[in-house]
Amino acid sequence: MNLFDKPQGTPRPIAELQAGENVSWFYRVQEAVKKKTKANDDFLDLALMDKSGRLAAKVWNKVEETYKLIRPGEVYKISGEVREYRGRLQLTITHLRPVAAGDPGFEKGDFDEAPAFDSAALLAEAFALLNDNLRDPHLRRLNEMFQQEYGPVFAQAYGAQKIHHAFAGGLLQHTHALLKLVLAVAPHYGLDTELLLIGALFHDIGKTAEFKTLPALETTLAGGLLGHLVISLTIFQEMKNKIPDFPEPLSVRIQHLIVSHHGEKEYGSPEVPKTREAYLLHILDLLDSRMSIFDEQLKVGGGQKLFSDFNQALGTRILLDK
Amino acid sequence: MNLFDKPQGTPRPIAELQAGENVSWFYRVQEAVKKKTKANDDFLDLALMDKSGRLAAKVWNKVEETYKLIRPGEVYKISGEVREYRGRLQLTITHLRPVAAGDPGFEKGDFDEAPAFDSAALLAEAFALLNDNLRDPHLRRLNEMFQQEYGPVFAQAYGAQKIHHAFAGGLLQHTHALLKLVLAVAPHYGLDTELLLIGALFHDIGKTAEFKTLPALETTLAGGLLGHLVISLTIFQEMKNKIPDFPEPLSVRIQHLIVSHHGEKEYGSPEVPKTREAYLLHILDLLDSRMSIFDEQLKVGGGQKLFSDFNQALGTRILLDK
Amino acid sequence: MNLFDKPQGTPRPIAELQAGENVSWFYRVQEAVKKKTKANDDFLDLALMDKSGRLAAKVWNKVEETYKLIRPGEVYKISGEVREYRGRLQLTITHLRPVAAGDPGFEKGDFDEAPAFDSAALLAEAFALLNDNLRDPHLRRLNEMFQQEYGPVFAQAYGAQKIHHAFAGGLLQHTHALLKLVLAVAPHYGLDTELLLIGALFHDIGKTAEFKTLPALETTLAGGLLGHLVISLTIFQEMKNKIPDFPEPLSVRIQHLIVSHHGEKEYGSPEVPKTREAYLLHILDLLDSRMSIFDEQLKVGGGQKLFSDFNQALGTRILLDK
Amino acid sequence: MNLFDKPQGTPRPIAELQAGENVSWFYRVQEAVKKKTKANDDFLDLALMDKSGRLAAKVWNKVEETYKLIRPGEVYKISGEVREYRGRLQLTITHLRPVAAGDPGFEKGDFDEAPAFDSAALLAEAFALLNDNLRDPHLRRLNEMFQQEYGPVFAQAYGAQKIHHAFAGGLLQHTHALLKLVLAVAPHYGLDTELLLIGALFHDIGKTAEFKTLPALETTLAGGLLGHLVISLTIFQEMKNKIPDFPEPLSVRIQHLIVSHHGEKEYGSPEVPKTREAYLLHILDLLDSRMSIFDEQLKVGGGQKLFSDFNQALGTRILLDK
Amino acid sequence: MNLFDKPQGTPRPIAELQAGENVSWFYRVQEAVKKKTKANDDFLDLALMDKSGRLAAKVWNKVEETYKLIRPGEVYKISGEVREYRGRLQLTITHLRPVAAGDPGFEKGDFDEAPAFDSAALLAEAFALLNDNLRDPHLRRLNEMFQQEYGPVFAQAYGAQKIHHAFAGGLLQHTHALLKLVLAVAPHYGLDTELLLIGALFHDIGKTAEFKTLPALETTLAGGLLGHLVISLTIFQEMKNKIPDFPEPLSVRIQHLIVSHHGEKEYGSPEVPKTREAYLLHILDLLDSRMSIFDEQLKVGGGQKLFSDFNQALGTRILLDK
Amino acid sequence: MNLFDKPQGTPRPIAELQAGENVSWFYRVQEAVKKKTKANDDFLDLALMDKSGRLAAKVWNKVEETYKLIRPGEVYKISGEVREYRGRLQLTITHLRPVAAGDPGFEKGDFDEAPAFDSAALLAEAFALLNDNLRDPHLRRLNEMFQQEYGPVFAQAYGAQKIHHAFAGGLLQHTHALLKLVLAVAPHYGLDTELLLIGALFHDIGKTAEFKTLPALETTLAGGLLGHLVISLTIFQEMKNKIPDFPEPLSVRIQHLIVSHHGEKEYGSPEVPKTREAYLLHILDLLDSRMSIFDEQLKVGGGQKLFSDFNQALGTRILLDK
Repeated sequence: MNLFDKPQGTPRPIAELQAGENVSWFYRVQEAVKKKTKANDDFLDLALMDKSGRLAAKVWNKVEETYKLIRPGEVYKISGEVREYRGRLQLTITHLRPVAAGDPGFEKGDFDEAPAFDSAALLAEAFALLNDNLRDPHLRRLNEMFQQEYGPVFAQAYGAQKIHHAFAGGLLQHTHALLKLVLAVAPHYGLDTELLLIGALFHDIGKTAEFKTLPALETTLAGGLLGHLVISLTIFQEMKNKIPDFPEPLSVRIQHLIVSHHGEKEYGSPEVPKTREAYLLHILDLLDSRMSIFDEQLKVGGGQKLFSDFNQALGTRILLDK
Repeated sequence: MNLFDKPQGTPRPIAELQAGENVSWFYRVQEAVKKKTKANDDFLDLALMDKSGRLAAKVWNKVEETYKLIRPGEVYKISGEVREYRGRLQLTITHLRPVAAGDPGFEKGDFDEAPAFDSAALLAEAFALLNDNLRDPHLRRLNEMFQQEYGPVFAQAYGAQKIHHAFAGGLLQHTHALLKLVLAVAPHYGLDTELLLIGALFHDIGKTAEFKTLPALETTLAGGLLGHLVISLTIFQEMKNKIPDFPEPLSVRIQHLIVSHHGEKEYGSPEVPKTREAYLLHILDLLDSRMSIFDEQLKVGGGQKLFSDFNQALGTRILLDK
Repeated sequence: MNLFDKPQGTPRPIAELQAGENVSWFYRVQEAVKKKTKANDDFLDLALMDKSGRLAAKVWNKVEETYKLIRPGEVYKISGEVREYRGRLQLTITHLRPVAAGDPGFEKGDFDEAPAFDSAALLAEAFALLNDNLRDPHLRRLNEMFQQEYGPVFAQAYGAQKIHHAFAGGLLQHTHALLKLVLAVAPHYGLDTELLLIGALFHDIGKTAEFKTLPALETTLAGGLLGHLVISLTIFQEMKNKIPDFPEPLSVRIQHLIVSHHGEKEYGSPEVPKTREAYLLHILDLLDSRMSIFDEQLKVGGGQKLFSDFNQALGTRILLDK
Repeated sequence: MNLFDKPQGTPRPIAELQAGENVSWFYRVQEAVKKKTKANDDFLDLALMDKSGRLAAKVWNKVEETYKLIRPGEVYKISGEVREYRGRLQLTITHLRPVAAGDPGFEKGDFDEAPAFDSAALLAEAFALLNDNLRDPHLRRLNEMFQQEYGPVFAQAYGAQKIHHAFAGGLLQHTHALLKLVLAVAPHYGLDTELLLIGALFHDIGKTAEFKTLPALETTLAGGLLGHLVISLTIFQEMKNKIPDFPEPLSVRIQHLIVSHHGEKEYGSPEVPKTREAYLLHILDLLDSRMSIFDEQLKVGGGQKLFSDFNQALGTRILLDK
Repeated sequence: MNLFDKPQGTPRPIAELQAGENVSWFYRVQEAVKKKTKANDDFLDLALMDKSGRLAAKVWNKVEETYKLIRPGEVYKISGEVREYRGRLQLTITHLRPVAAGDPGFEKGDFDEAPAFDSAALLAEAFALLNDNLRDPHLRRLNEMFQQEYGPVFAQAYGAQKIHHAFAGGLLQHTHALLKLVLAVAPHYGLDTELLLIGALFHDIGKTAEFKTLPALETTLAGGLLGHLVISLTIFQEMKNKIPDFPEPLSVRIQHLIVSHHGEKEYGSPEVPKTREAYLLHILDLLDSRMSIFDEQLKVGGGQKLFSDFNQALGTRILLDK
Repeated sequence: MNLFDKPQGTPRPIAELQAGENVSWFYRVQEAVKKKTKANDDFLDLALMDKSGRLAAKVWNKVEETYKLIRPGEVYKISGEVREYRGRLQLTITHLRPVAAGDPGFEKGDFDEAPAFDSAALLAEAFALLNDNLRDPHLRRLNEMFQQEYGPVFAQAYGAQKIHHAFAGGLLQHTHALLKLVLAVAPHYGLDTELLLIGALFHDIGKTAEFKTLPALETTLAGGLLGHLVISLTIFQEMKNKIPDFPEPLSVRIQHLIVSHHGEKEYGSPEVPKTREAYLLHILDLLDSRMSIFDEQLKVGGGQKLFSDFNQALGTRILLDK
């Protein structure tokens, strides 16, 4: 046993794991894919989670046997060694079995898909920003409906399947950032803050239907064939249709913010920003996503090297001290 | 008077005009824009129409005075000389006055926005193709609703503001072509013909709301901020929402055909074709639009030259014998 | 022995193999390349074939020894396990020896490079389409010469080394599809069907000299330095030079169809389509190749996932139910 | 005389001119280029200025004679008619003569190249922002030197020759905006505000040497061959070389902000942003320049049309109500 | 009469004309196109030539009448004023009549399409370079045939219709430059000089059939549908087919130099350079064409400005002192 | 022991190693990176060197133990087998220990970072070319300073970290080639040879500070944040600042050659070539780098195949006989 390993039975939530330790604890399998090495050997590529975070894992032995045992969504007692791989932690699994009745330390509530941070507080802060700054009655009504219909879903949705904000609560974190940035920047240019707040609120809401996280992470039919931008648009349309006399021009402007927020046609926006508000929402969305990618790359570190490896999303190697 | 000019009072519908003739007849002004030459002189750029077609026109003299006289949508008695300009006919206006009560030869019905060809027959043929080939009850219901709600609008809609099928009935001609091509090609690859027919029917229907032609040609708020692709999607959604139990997967597939029909993100499709049907609809749409552009360029001719000038839409000069 | 394995001595043509079975049968080695894993271990990457199809295979043990034994083009008795790898079947070879005199079940004729389908019938159908629809005497003469000089070669040529139609008979299948599509679509636009049929016939004929399939698949000097488009052009020129009084303008138009069929300069066409016929041939070539890639991806399937992995040639993941 | 014209002798500063009025007043000629119309007629294209702003002007008559009279940099008594051309005002000159001794109303001080707004106040505000937020002694020293050496130049420099902020004081306005935005946004991401303030201060300082505005607007040798980005870099280097013990790593980071602020190599940055600070400076620079272009297009208006003409810099038509 | 004008009857060859002079002399009309100004007025755009050079000309008055008089290829007595327009001289024609019998000063031989420089000497020099450096018997034979069949045509061919080397003898000048550069650079890299010389000789020979210069400049059918690169290839193939036992690999390599000399597929090369010789030929071709474009832009000058206008072909403004 | 292996104790400089031999000799470790295979096993990726060249090496066993032993920059006695991997030789290390006192055959001088060829002679030749051809006194002074300050550094600098000229002396080889090519080509176009020689001398000098080679190869802070082009510029500026009365226009032109030598903005040049000299320097730089890449690919060979694998830097497979 490694000197640094914790005594058997000590709870090891994902967020506390460290490279080098041997672990034996409960985790939920979120995704399980059978793959092959270049040498044609099977292995399993798993995504584990508990309420503290997510962790990649690999199974190199008894692959077929283990694969048959796993049902994505279920919790298992898993043993293995924590290693660092390409700047992220990864668990090399040596043993895995279903949770047994009366397993000491197992708590069902530890495996809900829920943000690793205090999402209730952040949600409250985001909604307060909206409630305090919206004056237009139609927008206030829309905001209320959103909070009622999407509040809980919104609070725990992933921001993406990969790349940035790819975790429970990610959508909320990203949207909250945009709301704050809108309030910081819009007044400098005399823009319509209320329109921008509503645009920020709805722009990525389609991500809640683009893929599902339970039992496994998977793209939905609508997610793959239409994409989150079109789904966001549809969600907005259906909600505003329930509001009597919602002004059509206002509706069109909000829809414009949603459909143009990727900024360029080649990034999937069927129309580019044609108002200053639409341009600002696009630029803030870009800024926040890039900052998130910078942050993830910075966390990975790079030993004594000054620069990271080439980061595909940023199109460059980056300087590795913050 | 030019020897080839018709005697005063002879009806001169746009479709019969010829380069070089002097004309004096009734036309409706569809669009009137005041512009300036490089030398800063004002002139008017008009779009004229009657039920036989459309014609560009210019006013070089008494510009301000004439401009004040014109209300787009109204019919005027117009005199001038027909010339060829960049392969199209154009009228240089020397005189223009509102229609007077009792003007001999003036018929109000000559200026309706209506196709220059027998659109009723083509519409019937298109609808027959649909009625004969759709079996799925939900698609049949959708087809019925489309024919009821959009039949008349569809029959006389423009296919675009410029470039190709930019005339009353253009949308019908383009859609009819796609329906026929779907039936000719889809069986070769064993594709879902019914899905394709519905996709073809709806793919450009948003053009009926992207711009208006009466009184003047103009992009609408929704047209400019959302584009016809998104409007087509919304029209489809609202129609299928009225059909009880319309299967969601079928709905998503039809929406996919609509949103991916431009084929590439840089051409405004938020998602690219991910099914064979979507790919085929895209390729037939591309083929029909390009053939239409080839045809227009071929009509322009080019004197004794073998090749046309550079055609922006085709990205090349083309060979000028058909 | 796996329960699903066939009794020793049962013929196992490639087209009938299934994932998971152990096999011991005769196959011709079409290509043998020594490669290294990332861990620097040698392995052999083989392409096997029999008259029913093609199969990738790997040798992980006794690599050097086996490599010396193999002469591409020869038939071997091969044992191993059939596995699925990235959506295709693959044989992991455990034993391999040259065919011995009197090996029971070995038939020399089983290893000719020949289409896996009834290519004679398809060739006859393709030639009948041409014979029935060509009227112009020069084109009829060209067609005759083509059928005499290229008939047999054409019937069994690969359509490509990889990507689409990469098998014996692939060129015929692709060309046949184009001939049929030309007849289905050209009349809709009033195009010159005869010109299009000849263009379709010759457009890819250079593929017969771009690479060789016997004994091993390999790019030729001309194939690598000139490409199939230029070779197709040269084959056409040399054939029409043998026809007295072949009209030069007709020759130039056919050459234009050949050189422009990739549609864009960046895809290797030195000139883009400048006639409607050239544009149609390009678009049908594109359609047929993409449909073939869709079909291959669909065959691969994807377990319970809705969407395939990213397909490089299509530039997207695709929906996995047909 | 137009009823709206002012009585002879009334001062008509550029900022107060209106479309349609006839004017006769003093203006400095900033630029005079002889051009030809398509019909090969000569005309003069002038840039006029006074301390209230800049105005384009044209001379259509007595071109040669007038041209010989003009020495860019001098003030003239100019008569003509104010018109609107492509959304900007323009003066069609009918008469022009040098200022004569004792011309009533002529004030030499009216023609200094100076901002049309209270640049002293804005400069003070910008410098206060810097003074208040910089703590690092080397950056404070750099800031002091900048204020001493570049203060006056900085306050009245153009932000560009065309496109955006192309007027005296434009560089200050743009830089001031960036300083404010840095302070509003940087804390949200925990970035190095001091580094960002210095980067914003120097990023475009090379524009003061990229072109000259006196007597005429013209690109300099260094401006054309090196560009403002490289000149900004050189100005920074020479200034920091005078500060003893300026830390080299700090210097390199500031240089990085300068050279990467265009964001992409194709926009002239030899390196792309590799730190979060560099990325933020780039995105704020982009935002402020685009907002300025939106504003200019909005000022131009567009009659009753909903959308502007295609705006090259924005890559789209924009919605015309603010 | 302008003081600087020459006395009536003085020969005024094109190469000696100066901006500002009034001229009345004999010129051949090479091209005559009727165009319209933006204000819809007709004018004629002519290309004039004599053996000393080429000159653009315009007719603004009596357009129709003059147009009917002109037959491209014929010589006319032409009066007008020489002006500078966009850096080139241009003749504004006031009067034009056919040459009359016995017109004093008219020499038929002055209007042959022939180089303005001593092309015989340059041709001899180019051929000597080839004769001296080719050793391979097949290449020597090819060289001989080229000199016999293409010598005279080659000596006076245009290098292009526009952009660079667009004059009689231009092809020779460009090819001669490449031969010399090949001899200067190839040895540095130990390349196959003989292959390169033959490649340089044939690479643009197709330009002799891509367009015709008599009577008017015009793209041919083959030129427009196939382009000079493909025609060069065909000319080479037909010539080498006449040489017994011409080695096929050598032929393929030469063809590769021809088809890849544009360097990139998007510039019309169906294959990119795959040998060092092909790469060098491409880079020298690029260098010589760009140097020619620089030279033309430098000749145009730019008054007192330091930099030229934006040059489309170079993608930049250039510095205007040599 | 392999029959072809050398007797124990025979010196085995890197340049003499052959695929297949077992070796045991002294090498300096230039770079040591711990990596993982896809199967998550650790291995070491080393760069070895001696004065005869560089060699990649791998450690597959006792990875952690060996890793702790290695200090980049030190010399080790290394045993292993030489293999070919992707066309380059590579050492699979079986044993590694630090050099011991009195190790027979160990010579400290064998591990200096020094060119594998006679760099003194090449340096002398390069400097002689400069000394003989520079006449301008300021340029002569600059040349002298360069030779004094950068002579030794220049002679042994790498030309790059990878891709081309990535070895000690590589910068000198590349620069020497450019000096010779300048002298061969510049006179053909009448260009300023002296300016070009100085531009060639300085254009890549920044590479001496872009990365360091001792003890390990690594990008520097300035190298990563500014790039060699900007560092070259700074080195030039600081050197010319020491020369009294160095003419500013001459300085700007030289700087232009440096900043534009990548030819296009997307390749990192903040300005593109605006003089013929700048264009030529760019094109020669491109030619020499590409020729170097061709040569490396050709050395790799490819068994009996005619064409190499796809070469990323050249954008193509290349023909494999020289």
